[in-house]
Amino acid sequence: MPLVSAFASSSSALRRGPLARVRRLLVAAATRARSSSRARGGLPRFHAPSLPSSKGEVVRIQGDEFWHMTRVLRLGVSDRVELFDGAGGLVQGSITKVEKGGSDVELLEDARLIAPQGIQWHVFAAFGTLKGGRADWLIEKCTELGACSVTPLLTERCHTIAENRVDRMQRLVLAAVKQCQRIHEMSLKPPIQIGNLLPVVSQSKLAFLASAEAPPLLRVLPKSSNEQSGLLIIGPEGDFTEEEVHGLKSAGAAPVGLGPCRLRVETATISLLSALMLWSDANHQETQQCS
Amino acid sequence: MPLVSAFASSSSALRRGPLARVRRLLVAAATRARSSSRARGGLPRFHAPSLPSSKGEVVRIQGDEFWHMTRVLRLGVSDRVELFDGAGGLVQGSITKVEKGGSDVELLEDARLIAPQGIQWHVFAAFGTLKGGRADWLIEKCTELGACSVTPLLTERCHTIAENRVDRMQRLVLAAVKQCQRIHEMSLKPPIQIGNLLPVVSQSKLAFLASAEAPPLLRVLPKSSNEQSGLLIIGPEGDFTEEEVHGLKSAGAAPVGLGPCRLRVETATISLLSALMLWSDANHQETQQCS
Repeated sequence: MPLVSAFASSSSALRRGPLARVRRLLVAAATRARSSSRARGGLPRFHAPSLPSSKGEVVRIQGDEFWHMTRVLRLGVSDRVELFDGAGGLVQGSITKVEKGGSDVELLEDARLIAPQGIQWHVFAAFGTLKGGRADWLIEKCTELGACSVTPLLTERCHTIAENRVDRMQRLVLAAVKQCQRIHEMSLKPPIQIGNLLPVVSQSKLAFLASAEAPPLLRVLPKSSNEQSGLLIIGPEGDFTEEEVHGLKSAGAAPVGLGPCRLRVETATISLLSALMLWSDANHQETQQCS
Repeated sequence: MPLVSAFASSSSALRRGPLARVRRLLVAAATRARSSSRARGGLPRFHAPSLPSSKGEVVRIQGDEFWHMTRVLRLGVSDRVELFDGAGGLVQGSITKVEKGGSDVELLEDARLIAPQGIQWHVFAAFGTLKGGRADWLIEKCTELGACSVTPLLTERCHTIAENRVDRMQRLVLAAVKQCQRIHEMSLKPPIQIGNLLPVVSQSKLAFLASAEAPPLLRVLPKSSNEQSGLLIIGPEGDFTEEEVHGLKSAGAAPVGLGPCRLRVETATISLLSALMLWSDANHQETQQCS
């Protein structure tokens, strides 16, 4: 029996008296725990890598998601849930069976495929040398803020990234995707040499390079844009070399300033991404209202 | 003898052969270590809580700053440095004495007093219940991004903050102030009850409340502003209660949306602050160019 119901069915004396406060706190804590994996005002949501497409089909939930469903949220047979596959697939279902190693969810409708909205931002940041969990933060926050992909950028002053880091980051991405209720997973791409980034920049009409002494970002941004995607480029600790900056600018990246303070790599990334996400969100809503 | 010089004076064979790469890496590491407490392209900078005002006067550097000056950066007699007091005071000096417990720096000019520029942003965030270093991160990033002050906000769903946290955060602020080269320290204020925030909001012409389902921030922001300061208000995990939101709106806070994703408390704070700092920075530079 879920914690909340167990308390709700206790004597009504609990609503008064000295225990009333304890009860209110416990109910509040349980409500918070539930709400953390629940779409705002909606059903609790779980990740199923492979989602069937038609009403009535059954999907098996295992591993961490099963544990989260049955142990953390204490859901059981007949409880309704939402399933997503990280690629835009979303569907409501009902739990039909709970066993030791997994649970079955029956689809209550045909799965919907939701297209990504607004400009898709691709982050190229030289974070391979960051220490003290700063790279983890960068990845988690990029996921939460809605970046489409993150690619570790290899430059003269940041020429490597440990392999085991990438595995760890992949787990962080999934946790953050669930936490922030993204329908589309963020893609963590293999590291790229700065030389190989230049042709990508040349093909993009929206490419921004975080740079000290450049004009403020909000003065460089166009009023609106019809582009589908854009690039954010952030240098390493110790910055790009002059030749690297020259190469990026020649390829068409617009240098943008991020305010008067000197920002760390992860802070510059988050600051630039936040501003661009808010800009494209405002654009997107405006376009929708006009159409 | 500093690491760089020690290597520089070694046999020139080091410039070729298999050790050349090791040498380059060590030189690069030492350069990075030095640059981290150096104004961009300027002198290494240290904090002196009380700064004399006139050329020729001497100030004693002790504690962490002394250690950083003499052990990390290996500075000695005759080396030039920059001193700041965190309240806008800034001056160049020269080291005249290095002893066991501290060093003396003689002022090479009269101290300058630099006024804060642009809109001063005051952050009110309900971060008392954040775990896993998230509150620390919030404080560090607010300092780095240039917030004027941060105040823990106490609400119905976040009604406390541990006292020992505040001490720890104070240390984080100073470390971040030095790292990002702020001339003015960020002020970490005592916690405030949400009821006591309402009159502050009423008196402010720029007060923004992070809120799901609100219009996007960049559509709510005025084109420019002559205000000296503004407020950012961010709710706790589990959000404000409806009454709290109603109270804040009635007092004049503008609800603003931060994009389609559900953000954690610390991410919402950084995202909102980043965008507002970039907005006021763009405004400030425009005003300066016009005048």
